[in-house]
Order: sequence, then structure tokens, then C-alpha cells
Amino acid sequence: MVDFDDIKEYVKGALKQYMFPVALLVFQCVFIVLYGVHADYGLQKHETTNITEAMSHNSEPPEGDVEFYYSFFQDVHVMMFIGFGFLMTFLRRYSFSSVSFNFLIAAFVVEWAILVHGYVFEWNPVTKSFPVDVKTLLKADFVCASVLISFGAVLGKTNPAQLVVLALIEVVIQVWNEYIGLVLFCVYDAGESIFVHVFGAYFGLAVSYTLQRHHIVESTKESSSYASDIFSMIGTLFLFCFWPSFNAGTAYGDGRLRAIVNTYVSISASVILTFTVSALVGKGKEEIIHIQNATLAGGVAVGTVADKNIGLFGAMIIGSLAGIISTLGYKYLLELLKKIRIHDTCGVHNLHGMPGVFSGLAGIVVASMPWRSYYHENLSDKCLSGGEHRSAAVQAGYQCAGLLLTLGMAIVGGVFTGLILRLPIFASPDNNSYFDDSLNWHVPQDFVAEDSALGSLIKNILPTNMQLEENPKQATPIIVKYNPNTIEFIQEKSPRQSIQTVSRQSDQSVFLNVADLKNDQSNPTSPVLFTQRL
Amino acid sequence: MVDFDDIKEYVKGALKQYMFPVALLVFQCVFIVLYGVHADYGLQKHETTNITEAMSHNSEPPEGDVEFYYSFFQDVHVMMFIGFGFLMTFLRRYSFSSVSFNFLIAAFVVEWAILVHGYVFEWNPVTKSFPVDVKTLLKADFVCASVLISFGAVLGKTNPAQLVVLALIEVVIQVWNEYIGLVLFCVYDAGESIFVHVFGAYFGLAVSYTLQRHHIVESTKESSSYASDIFSMIGTLFLFCFWPSFNAGTAYGDGRLRAIVNTYVSISASVILTFTVSALVGKGKEEIIHIQNATLAGGVAVGTVADKNIGLFGAMIIGSLAGIISTLGYKYLLELLKKIRIHDTCGVHNLHGMPGVFSGLAGIVVASMPWRSYYHENLSDKCLSGGEHRSAAVQAGYQCAGLLLTLGMAIVGGVFTGLILRLPIFASPDNNSYFDDSLNWHVPQDFVAEDSALGSLIKNILPTNMQLEENPKQATPIIVKYNPNTIEFIQEKSPRQSIQTVSRQSDQSVFLNVADLKNDQSNPTSPVLFTQRL
Amino acid sequence: MVDFDDIKEYVKGALKQYMFPVALLVFQCVFIVLYGVHADYGLQKHETTNITEAMSHNSEPPEGDVEFYYSFFQDVHVMMFIGFGFLMTFLRRYSFSSVSFNFLIAAFVVEWAILVHGYVFEWNPVTKSFPVDVKTLLKADFVCASVLISFGAVLGKTNPAQLVVLALIEVVIQVWNEYIGLVLFCVYDAGESIFVHVFGAYFGLAVSYTLQRHHIVESTKESSSYASDIFSMIGTLFLFCFWPSFNAGTAYGDGRLRAIVNTYVSISASVILTFTVSALVGKGKEEIIHIQNATLAGGVAVGTVADKNIGLFGAMIIGSLAGIISTLGYKYLLELLKKIRIHDTCGVHNLHGMPGVFSGLAGIVVASMPWRSYYHENLSDKCLSGGEHRSAAVQAGYQCAGLLLTLGMAIVGGVFTGLILRLPIFASPDNNSYFDDSLNWHVPQDFVAEDSALGSLIKNILPTNMQLEENPKQATPIIVKYNPNTIEFIQEKSPRQSIQTVSRQSDQSVFLNVADLKNDQSNPTSPVLFTQRL
Repeated sequence: MVDFDDIKEYVKGALKQYMFPVALLVFQCVFIVLYGVHADYGLQKHETTNITEAMSHNSEPPEGDVEFYYSFFQDVHVMMFIGFGFLMTFLRRYSFSSVSFNFLIAAFVVEWAILVHGYVFEWNPVTKSFPVDVKTLLKADFVCASVLISFGAVLGKTNPAQLVVLALIEVVIQVWNEYIGLVLFCVYDAGESIFVHVFGAYFGLAVSYTLQRHHIVESTKESSSYASDIFSMIGTLFLFCFWPSFNAGTAYGDGRLRAIVNTYVSISASVILTFTVSALVGKGKEEIIHIQNATLAGGVAVGTVADKNIGLFGAMIIGSLAGIISTLGYKYLLELLKKIRIHDTCGVHNLHGMPGVFSGLAGIVVASMPWRSYYHENLSDKCLSGGEHRSAAVQAGYQCAGLLLTLGMAIVGGVFTGLILRLPIFASPDNNSYFDDSLNWHVPQDFVAEDSALGSLIKNILPTNMQLEENPKQATPIIVKYNPNTIEFIQEKSPRQSIQTVSRQSDQSVFLNVADLKNDQSNPTSPVLFTQRL
Repeated sequence: MVDFDDIKEYVKGALKQYMFPVALLVFQCVFIVLYGVHADYGLQKHETTNITEAMSHNSEPPEGDVEFYYSFFQDVHVMMFIGFGFLMTFLRRYSFSSVSFNFLIAAFVVEWAILVHGYVFEWNPVTKSFPVDVKTLLKADFVCASVLISFGAVLGKTNPAQLVVLALIEVVIQVWNEYIGLVLFCVYDAGESIFVHVFGAYFGLAVSYTLQRHHIVESTKESSSYASDIFSMIGTLFLFCFWPSFNAGTAYGDGRLRAIVNTYVSISASVILTFTVSALVGKGKEEIIHIQNATLAGGVAVGTVADKNIGLFGAMIIGSLAGIISTLGYKYLLELLKKIRIHDTCGVHNLHGMPGVFSGLAGIVVASMPWRSYYHENLSDKCLSGGEHRSAAVQAGYQCAGLLLTLGMAIVGGVFTGLILRLPIFASPDNNSYFDDSLNWHVPQDFVAEDSALGSLIKNILPTNMQLEENPKQATPIIVKYNPNTIEFIQEKSPRQSIQTVSRQSDQSVFLNVADLKNDQSNPTSPVLFTQRL
Repeated sequence: MVDFDDIKEYVKGALKQYMFPVALLVFQCVFIVLYGVHADYGLQKHETTNITEAMSHNSEPPEGDVEFYYSFFQDVHVMMFIGFGFLMTFLRRYSFSSVSFNFLIAAFVVEWAILVHGYVFEWNPVTKSFPVDVKTLLKADFVCASVLISFGAVLGKTNPAQLVVLALIEVVIQVWNEYIGLVLFCVYDAGESIFVHVFGAYFGLAVSYTLQRHHIVESTKESSSYASDIFSMIGTLFLFCFWPSFNAGTAYGDGRLRAIVNTYVSISASVILTFTVSALVGKGKEEIIHIQNATLAGGVAVGTVADKNIGLFGAMIIGSLAGIISTLGYKYLLELLKKIRIHDTCGVHNLHGMPGVFSGLAGIVVASMPWRSYYHENLSDKCLSGGEHRSAAVQAGYQCAGLLLTLGMAIVGGVFTGLILRLPIFASPDNNSYFDDSLNWHVPQDFVAEDSALGSLIKNILPTNMQLEENPKQATPIIVKYNPNTIEFIQEKSPRQSIQTVSRQSDQSVFLNVADLKNDQSNPTSPVLFTQRL
């Protein structure tokens, strides 16, 4: 008689274990083929440059120019891998996953984004290829930011297979949305606040909502430790330092200088207002989560108009308001959203969503002042409604349209993605496995000892000379469910000396009876490892 | 009958809670107005550059040139926020404050320094404005370094309101001192060892002395943990790597190359001598505090003459001596200074003070060798005593005068600032609150558990399923003073279940009697949370 | 009667304590003299540059050009000090040594490498000097990488005196090997995979084998903790981000762009394959050690051909294969090598050795395709076998010869160095002191408390008000061997109250009898510090 439940369980186990690496492998093979067929180096076209033109600092640098973009690109690269990666390590039991899956997703996205961006923006029908130069790498990192923001919203609540699929879908929608916005609508958005921050935040929130529609996320593991909060500050500070490079990355000439200065001033202002508001709402005490996140809101909020002539004055007001909005969002809105089942682990709505929308609104206002927006520089003959000869009012309308389009694409795309990720094939982790590295990682001994009475007992009491060896070739292991993490760990590390029973005799003592697996018999009265008052 | 003590206590509490955010808010508003009225982008003047001149690598780059300064600026920016920020995290219970207040102060200072530096150095009476370009941001970061060094001297002994006022005053004095030194005295100081390091160190020491004049700072919390020491090394290594950018930031042509090479060689030499001396005075064992700090002394000590033709030989000797002086300072001088009530938390006297003075002295020596100092390059017709036609001896004299002026301004300014910070309005923290994050932060659970028997008890014994909720709307909480940190924490997290009494029955057991706040009565015999052998 | 054993013991102790600082001091003095006699600034020769030439982006930049090299140099500098330094902090009880000795060795090597590289490559017999510019500093950092890789192989198993001597010898052999390979064999190796990675890895393995020939390294301290693994990720991510700067550092023109793009693509591919293979061999769970290391293999493996026209396709395949090889190496080969007494602490064979050899082989293949290798650009009239007119087959042969030469020089040089380091004068640490910071450092209290039952007891039970003072002037301390770390610690911190006996009365209690050293008598019945149930 076939037991369908067993088969189902087995398939589910296999999917859980192997879907992720197999999916990665398949995508990587596809990428390799596409790179082989269509990608080419974006070398400089002409050996002899027209020097006078090159020296006029307000003209675009020649294509393929390494030196003009490289140090900006490297700053942005550090923001993606160190900045976002460490920012997310604040969860005390999910730091391996935070920093490593950020690493994986970012690497995966840059490969995929170079392809998608190349096909959509840079495709040359004559050579049947698209060029890749340092500016392309920079643009790929921007796409990356978008996906990492969405990752922040679902942090700790998905498995890596889901993350890979999320990234795969989001990149395509993000790039197409940006193409419509930049090339057809001719929306200006120097720091990508609309196309990256707004898009990434609302896409992520929509995925999070769809994934958790029917239950509330509640876990004691969703908290930080003193060390994890400090690790997180590494991310914060690198994001802070290099934000001017993000906003000025693709600008040149006067626009580049303005983007740097505006971002520097705006993000500094949001730092100060974050400390101010955090102390005001916290009865004189600061919350580290505000400092880790809301301090950066000024960088987001100035993004769309970063290269415009908004004045240092304007940049400072934008940054100050962004700091206030973002801190209040972390303090009050985060909990409110949870009540309507929108769980936002990193609070991306407060750091990227609201400040991004604010930036889009600032873009609309500035568009109506042509002496500040120089919007003609962003127009080409491909633009809808007038090509290079738009009026300021039309430009303001398109800035608004770009923002709304992005919100729509992000939310619809996110819900769609969320529905796909709920398919049973993905074996979505359940509530108990949220925010826990032991689901996806072989974790060190102290990780297990932390947070479980049994683990703590073992850590503190176990004689140090009794080192437990790892031996993968054990006989059928007998697992007693007391605390899954702990028992699993002991199981793995000491297959020959397995804990057979854990009995709680009274409120104050725990008995662990350990059997010798080597003799392949579980004798509950055999070697008692230790009996100890808890 | 009015109880004045109660009113006094209430006012003190309100000041303690709200003075800091209100002060920040007020200053920020003032800054915004000043930026609106007087700051302007420092764009490049002429679209068409005289190419031949631009290519001559020994002429100053055109004003507003982004590419010439930007990567140096970014390196220095990382030094301020990551470098100084993490360097100070070595205190095991003050890491949140160290890295975050460093963040706040740095952001506050760059805003304020752009204004003050603009008014003093760059004011254009015709346009009634001053320009802001990448070089300005770089100069603002230099001012920042000065304040962060002073912060290091008082680390853990002030509240944030005091830090903000300290920064506000110090920036003004620092900029004016630098103006006199650079423009009138025409002192050369490429790496700002005099105007930043010496000034910052002695200003900070003077503040520290004035604040703590009447009592000795003594706290078991003034120590490091294994992790906090490693966090601190992040700061050390970024400071080390980017120090050449600091010293060469504003130089150009041959001077820039010399500044890079000299700093690289000098700071490497101080690394080696620090390890040497630390092992010699430590009986073969190293002290991590020496490695965290004294290794960088070579960067400070070569600063004043970094761009001069001192030879790699000279740079190496300077770095080696600086490493020796600084390490010996940490080993012996730090304790001696404490005895005369000068408490220097980060040892800035050893890392910035003495090596800075040494650098100033090196500057005097080099000034007497015109074939090495090229001091004419630093002269203008504004200079006192001869304008552009000074003799080498006069230049040496002015180098000396610049150093003495800086020492004087720093000490007088520091004492003045310290006296202001002692005003009762600042509610200066007392000795027991030094070096403790719980004064200014909502801290995670493990922070509290650390270091207190009760906290440890709670962490290790409390059933994990009993999560304590935060509820800000509790009735009058009843706090029993056993260990302030711990009790306060329980209070905050579990307002309805407050610990009423903590009694030590015997040497080996502690009784915690918990009352239910919901019933709004404190019944010492009611629900005993747990009784546990310690 | 003279007791020779006592004298021997004394000499051994003195050597152990003072050999390291004295050796450092002596070498530093020699370096200073050599810098004084032979090093000079590598300033730009002519003030007026031929502009047209300078603007042709495919010609080599002028010597002494700061801006062309500086931001690449800084990235590589961060890789050496932060990247390698933090990558090695994964050992939970050796993090101080990892990051600090990496710091020391790197600083020592850059000083020494500038000299050796100058004499071998840049010596000008007319001026009797060699120039030092930013490119020189970059090359010195490359040499540094080689030594730091070797350091990774012996991490935790040597004392610092041995490390200094290792560095001293390795730099000389590495530079000579590179001279033969680059200048005479005319091997191309843009990212130095052969001359740095292969050389460093096999040199280190040879040293490790020679040092540990007769015994197996086995230590419970050779493991990571949750925090130390996260610290290690800081190193990983900076190495990842800046690897394009490493491989493209000395390239220019089209080669520089290709080196950046190829490295970016290749290292991203190895990230993805590492996650894939790690999950496949780990039953669905990742190993953090793979993520920390194997993710970077793509950067190594593409090194030799980084600036060649291998296509993004080629770069991606190379990176993917490298990720697979490296992860499998960590999973299976590491243990196998241990069995033939080759203990490789950081697994440099898997990250640098095998991917480096793979890169060398790729170089041979590419050499046979002149339309991809442009190998003529790397030839000069100094080259053996045909000068500038080699055939592609000859070039392929020399690529192979360069790889074999490097392997030979590395292994022979490593064995030679290992034999020297085994001399009794070095007082090599024994197996029990491996991977332990307390051998070389004054460690904080929590370091001691960790991992020892006694330390844990002291940490948790000792009244906090009983602060133990440090007093170096104790009388002959009486050490009772229970746990060396712990006792030593108590000894140091409280010389007057030394633990005399530690007796385990029953399974559940430990008695610590403490004698007062001041009375200079060890009375086992005197002041019992505490008696406590464990």
C-alpha cells in the first residue's frame, strides 16, 4: 500500500532542499548563453578624441570612459554589498542570512540586470548585441538597489528559492517601468528615487502583504542584540557616506556638482532631524533603529531633484522633512501597517517608500520652475507630448505620471510575484522558522546555545574536554523534540551520543538521558550525560 | 505648600529629556535660513578651459572641479563617519553612543562648518554669498575631524546636549584659528596636524579637565570587550588606509604625490614601531588599545610637512618616532594625566596631541630648509611680515607662532567651553552614568543582561515563551532600586508585571516578587514570577 | 651548581618575549637607511605634457600620474588591510591576532616590498636610486597580497616573530619570481593570479607543511562563533567589491575596461555557484565558510586573462567553474590535505591555489588565440625567445613555464622558509597555544570567561564590586594548573590573591581556595574566595 502522505512529505523535503540550488544553476546557465550571444565590451569608439569638446566639463563624457565613472561606481557597489548587507544584520538570529542572501541576490541581480537593461535600453539591432561598460555596471547596481529594498520588506520570511524568483521577476518589471518613465515620459530622476526607491519599497510591501495575507507575523526572534545593532551601523554609515555618489553617479558637469552638494546637505539634515525626533518621541532616549534607517531618508528624498538647481536651502528643507517623516514612520506607522497584515521587516516603507514619494512630489514642484529644473536637458525627440519642446506644465504632468505609473507597476507586480511565491512548490517557511538562520545555515555552537535553556545549559555546563564530533554517517538518528534547534544541533554534532529523552522532572530540573548510538540501541537508562538543575 | 525640590526635580528631568532635541531643532532652523540667504553652488566659472594650463599637472585645478577632489573627499568622509565612529566603539557598554553620537556630531559639524568656513574664508561681498563645491565639503570634513578628536577626549562623560554645544563653539574657534594661521601667518600645514589634530586634542583635554575638575572619573564600565575591541579595529583600519587621502586632499601636482607617498611610508612606520614598543613594554604581549590608536600616529606626525620634500627617509623617521611616542603615551602618560584630573577616554593626547605637536616642530625644522619646504608656494600678499617675500627664518618663526597660537586658542577655548557645559541647565550626567548607553538609548535585552547578576538571571532562567510586552501607558510604575539598569528595563518592557522586591535570602538564592500593575496595587505577596537559585 | 635547564628556560622565555620586537626594530632601522640612500619620489618628468598623446586613452598614462592610479590603489589598499584582515577574523579566539598581525605584516611588507621591487624592477644605475609613485605603492600592495595569502595558510600556528621572518623571505622570492616571469618570460598576468595568488598559496602551504610535519594540528579553538563569522563577512564583501580594482589596477585603455567588466562578471558568477554548490553538498543548508571564501574564487580565476578579450561569456564560465572548484575544495579537500599533514587554516589552497592555477591554465589557452590575447602588447625586446616577435605558440609555452616556475619557486621557497622557522630560536608555539589570542595579547575579561567552566563561573558569580587590580610587581606567583588561560588571567589581574587549588568536590560543586600572595605564603586553608555550585 502506497502512503501518499509519505511521498508528499518526501517531495516536499526534496523541494525544500534542492529547489534553490537547482534554480540558481539553471538560471546561471541561461545567463551564460545570453552573455555569449549578445553582450559585448563597451569600448571607446574613437582613439582620437576631440579634445576641446572633452575638456568642456558640461558635455557628457565619451562612452566607455572608465575614469569618469569608476570611483562613483565603486562607491555604489560598496553601498549594495556592504551598505544594504550590513544594514539588515540587525536581526540577532538572522545575520548570516541577511548579509549573505543580500550578497547572493545582489550578485544574481547584477548579472540579470546587465542583460535586461542591455536588451531594453542599449540593444543595437545592427550588431545584434549591447555594450557593457562601467556606466552599465553602475546602472545594474541601481537595479540591484531596487531588489534589495524589496528584500528588506520580506527579510526573514522567505526561503532563498523565493528570493531568487522574486529577483528574477522584479528586475524585468523595474527595467521596463524605468524605460517607460525615462525614455517615453522623459521623467528626470537623477538619484532614482522614483524608479528605484519607490518601486522597490512598494513592490516589496506588496509581496510581503500577499505572502502573509492570512496570518500575523509574530516571533520573539524578530529583535536585535547589542552586537547585531552595531553591525547594522556599518551598513548605515557606508550608505550615508556614499549616497552622494549614488545620486550623482550618472550626472555630469554642473549637474554632478549640484547632485553631490545637494545630497550631502540633505542627508546631513535628515541625520539631525532623526536624532531630534527620536529623542522627542522617546522621552529623551534614542532608538537605534531610527538612527540606523531614518538618518538616510534625506538621501532618498532629494534623489529626483538632486542635480537640479534647488539651492542648498531647498536640499536642507527636503532632508529635514524626510528625517521627520521617516522617524515618525518607524515609531508609529510600522505597527499600524502590521495590523492590516503588512509586515515590513526593515521598515522600507519609512526609509524608501515615503521619502521616495516625497521626492517624486518635489520633482513635480521643481518641474514647474524651469529656471530650477533645466528640464530640457532631459528631453529627446523620443519623448511623448512634444519631444524636445515640452512646456513646463507638461513636464510637471509627466513627473506626476511617472510617479503614479511606478506605484502602480510596483504594487501590481508585487502582488503578482507574491502569488507566485505562495505556490506550494516553494515550500514557504512557516511562522516558527521566520527570522532564524538555522533554517538555512549550518550554525556555530554559540548560536544554538543562545536563547534556549537547553542550549545554554549545554554551553555552560558541558565539560569542555568532551568535544562532540561531526560524523555524517550515523545510523537512523533518533530525534526527541524538545527544542528543534538544539536537538538538531546535538544530533548533527554528536551522532553517536544522541539525547534520547529530555524530561522535566520539576520546575527546576531537566534530565537528559543520552544513549550511545554506536551500539545502535537506545537504552534510556544507559549513560546519563548529565543531570542538572536548570 | 509648594515643594520647590519637586519643581526643581521636574525641571531638571524635562531639561534632561528635551534640551537636546530642542537645541538641535533650533540650530537646524537657523542653519536652513543661513543656507538660504548666503550659500551658493561653487560651479566652474568658464565653460571653455584653457587646456594647456589644465594639463600642466602642477597648477591648481580649476575651482569647482569635481573629479580632481571627489575620490579624496570620499575617503576622508569615510574616515570621519566610519573611521572615527568605529574607533570609539571600544567601550563595551557605550558603543551605541560612540558610533551614533559621532554620526550626529559629524553631520551637525559639516553643516555648521560649511557656513562658518564660507563666511570666514570664502565670503564674496559682491554677490553676498559664498560658494560650496567638493573642496568645500572636504574642508568641512577637516573641521569635523577636529571636533571628533575633542569628542574622543570627553567620550562617555557628557550628554548629547553638551556635545552639540561643544561642537557649536569649537567650530567657530577652530575656523578662526585656522584663518589666522593659514591666511595671515601663512603657516603651511598640508595634513592639518596643527589646525586640526593639535587643536582638537588640546581643546578636548581642556574641556575634559574643566568638566571633571573636582572629582576622579572611575568606572568599571570604562573597559572593552572582545567584540567591542574588534569593532574598534574597523575604525582603525579605515583611518589607516585613507590617511594619505587626508594629508593629500587639498594638495595638487608634485605636492600631492609627495603627500601620498610620505603619509603612506610614515604611517606604515608607526604601525611597526607600535607593535615593537607595545611588545617591549608588555613583556612580549601586545595591548590592543595601542594597535587601535598608536599605529595611526605616523599619519598625524607627518601631516604638517606631508607635501614637502622631506624624502621617504624623513617620512619614515617621523613615523617611527611618532609610533614610539604615542605607544609610550598610552602605556604611561594616560594614567599620569588621570592623576591631575585630566581624563582622556580615547587617549587623544597620545594619538593627536603629541604627534601633532611633533608635526608642528617638524614643520619648523623643514621651514629652515627652503630647498625642502618650497614655502614660497604657500605665501600670498596677505601674509604678515613680508608678503610673498619672506625669508626662511621668518617662515620658521611663523610656523612656531602658528603652533603656539593653536595651543593657546585650543586650551583657552576648551576651558571656556567646559565652563559653559558645567552650567546646571545641561544636567551633566553623574559619575555612575558615565560610559553607559542605557542613559541615552533604549537598549536591547542582552545589553541589560550583561554585567548584572539579576539581568543574567533573567536572561538565562526566564522561560522563553514569556515575552514581555512594551506598553507605554502604564500607571505610576513602582521601581524598586536594586540595579538601576535592570529594573528600569523590566519596568519598561513589562509595565504590568513589575518587580516589587528583590530579596537576597541567602548567598545563593534571590527572590523576585512581582506585582501585577494592572490591578494597580502593589501586593508584595501576589504573583511571584520566579524563585530561583542564582 | 649551575642548573642548565633553568638557564635554558630563561633564555627561551626571553627569546619568546623579546625576539619579535627586537627583530622588528632592527629591520625597521635597516629599512630607514635603505630608504635614505636609494628611494626617491617618482614625480612626473615634464611639466608640459603632449596633450594629444595624453588624451589617446589607449596609451599608458604618464609616469607619476596620481589621478590615474589613486582610486584603484586605495581600493586595493582597503582589500589588504580590511579585506584580508577581517576575512581572517573567523576564528573565535584568534580575532585580535588575525586582524592585527595582518595589519602588522601588511605594513611591514609594503615597506620592504617598495625596496625590493625598486631594486629589482626600477633601479636607475645613473641616479643610484629608484622612484616611488602611486603605481609603486600599488605594486607593493600586490606583493603584500602574496604574503597575506601565505599568512592565511599558517594562521594561528605561528608567533609574530616567525611571521616577520616569513614576510622578509617571501617578499624577496616573490619579487624575483615575478621579475623572471614578467620581464624575461614576458608572461601576461594582469590580476597577478600566477605571481601573487598561486605563489602565495603554495608558499604558505609549503611553510605550513614543513612547520607541522610531525604532528597533527587539532584544537577545539579552531572554530568560529556567530559574531566572528559576521566579522569575517566584512572582509569578504570588501574583497568582492574591490576585486575589479585589483585586476584592473595596472591596466590602461581598453584593457582596463575589459579587466573591470570581466572581473565583475566572473566574481559575480562565482558567488552564485558557491551558493549553489554549498546548498547541494550541504543537504539544502549553506556553510558560511564557503560564502566567506569561495565566492571570491572568480576574481582569482579570471586574473591572468582579466584584460584580454575573453568575452563576458568567457569570464562568466571561468567564474562559475572557479566557484564550483573552490566550494568543493572547502567541503572535501581541506580534510584530505589535513590527513597528509598539510593544515591550511584559511583554506588558501581552495581560494587562491586552485583558482590561481586554473587562471594560469586559462592564460595558456588564451595565449594560443592571438586575436583574444593581444599578447604583443606585453612583449618587449628583453623577452626571451624572440623579443617582440614571438609566435602565439611560444607565448603559450612561456605562460606555462611561468606557472611552473612560480609553483616551483613557491614550494621550494616555502619549504626553505619553514625549515628556518623551525629553528629553536623562534620558540615556535606548541599545539595547545594554537588559535589562541591569550598567547600574544592582553585580553579582555570576557575573552577569558568564554569557553572555560572556571571563567564562566567567575564571570557569572563573582560579585561585581570586587574589581581585581593589575599589579605587575607581584612576588613569585604560584600558578596552579587547572585551565591555563583562566589561571593566568587571574594571576595577572590579581597577583595578590592567587587561586591555590581548584578542587571538584562532587559533580556539582567546585571549591576555589585562594591564598594571599602579599603574605607570601600559600596557605590552602586561608581565605576561600567563594564556594559555589557550578
